[in-house]
Amino acid sequence: MRFTSETSSDGVREQLFTLGEIPGMLWTPDGAAGARALILMGHGGGQHKMAPGITVRARRFAAECGFAVVAVDVTGHGDRPRDEEFDRIATEHQARMDAGEDLASLIADFQALVAGPTVVEWRAVLDAVQKLDHVGAGPVGYWGLSLGCGLGVPFVAAEPRVRAAVLGLAGAVVSAETAARITVPVEFLVQWDDERVPRAESLALFDAFASTQKTLHANPGKHGDIPAFELDSTVRFFARHLG
Amino acid sequence: MRFTSETSSDGVREQLFTLGEIPGMLWTPDGAAGARALILMGHGGGQHKMAPGITVRARRFAAECGFAVVAVDVTGHGDRPRDEEFDRIATEHQARMDAGEDLASLIADFQALVAGPTVVEWRAVLDAVQKLDHVGAGPVGYWGLSLGCGLGVPFVAAEPRVRAAVLGLAGAVVSAETAARITVPVEFLVQWDDERVPRAESLALFDAFASTQKTLHANPGKHGDIPAFELDSTVRFFARHLG
Repeated sequence: MRFTSETSSDGVREQLFTLGEIPGMLWTPDGAAGARALILMGHGGGQHKMAPGITVRARRFAAECGFAVVAVDVTGHGDRPRDEEFDRIATEHQARMDAGEDLASLIADFQALVAGPTVVEWRAVLDAVQKLDHVGAGPVGYWGLSLGCGLGVPFVAAEPRVRAAVLGLAGAVVSAETAARITVPVEFLVQWDDERVPRAESLALFDAFASTQKTLHANPGKHGDIPAFELDSTVRFFARHLG
Repeated sequence: MRFTSETSSDGVREQLFTLGEIPGMLWTPDGAAGARALILMGHGGGQHKMAPGITVRARRFAAECGFAVVAVDVTGHGDRPRDEEFDRIATEHQARMDAGEDLASLIADFQALVAGPTVVEWRAVLDAVQKLDHVGAGPVGYWGLSLGCGLGVPFVAAEPRVRAAVLGLAGAVVSAETAARITVPVEFLVQWDDERVPRAESLALFDAFASTQKTLHANPGKHGDIPAFELDSTVRFFARHLG
């Protein structure tokens, strides 16, 4: 793990790093020392480790809860090299979408392709980050919506360090069987008028989690229209389960 | 409006009253003076104005938010005289339930019968309570689950003083058209394994609200199993919209 740059503002330290080929960002409270909870965040499709939706949340988790937060670029995203197979599939998907094919199953196909290697990478990121003095081996949370949920479901199912997860904006086409292996508390976000995920598939994914503590939060609006107050709820959810 | 007894504990004053034939309870913060937000609470079927689910919430709204809270016994409940028509219908319903008839439509029939007079009573309660010096004419919220939702939907639809409502544990059999007249922010609670309200009917009622700000919170478990953290969310919801 190699740190490449560092800044600090409003009480939060941001450290860019690479772990092998994986570019990532680590947020910690200024002056952090000793073990603390760590949240791994998975970005959405076409986004990256410093997308506004990641950064805003990461800074709140660090500043308000004292947690460490880490996000890395998924294959083919952000600062990672173009991936030939990824590009070929993305082009093919665009053509199939233009031809009117079912968007949900195309998205699910893509997530299934990326999920295996991503789970391996994210587990290696946890290993590396938890060895740092200012992070340590505290409880782990996962946050990911849309692509971050499609990849997050297999990650949370596979990784026993994860004690709580915020997921959503994704359906059960691919991941229902995997979701049934998740038993930790889940807060699951649904956009009631999501143009990319059919409502019934969202509800089916929520239904599939084996967790005895799981809460679905549904709000009106399209895929990207999650209301601001849901972030307050997310902060409290992680504080309750990891604090 | 006639006050019949008064106690105070842990910073909250409780005043029993009658308004005509209607027995009620008013909670206010100790020493309250001047206008403040007021929450009207509708109890569940077979319950009453001082049922634990009412009292616990009312005391938190008063102590944590500084609100006034009022609850009255619905016809045929609590300290109200037995109502012959109510008793006859309740007996008939029990027989029909025992015969395996659809519970949801029986509940809806009952709520439709009681809703008209209840809305009139609750509006009179608001009029009376808002004339008190320690309540005044602040913004109004409504809280009601199960029967309290079945009666609350027509009340919130009819009463322009209500600015925000927590509803749930009820379906759309009767109230979808009325729900479509509700435009204030709504937090709507669903129990995912509710043995009394079919899941699809709960979702249909949430869908029917015209509110641009509405959030559905679904948790696993049966009709009575709402997790404790939902009360924290309810407190914050009212604080956000009435505070």
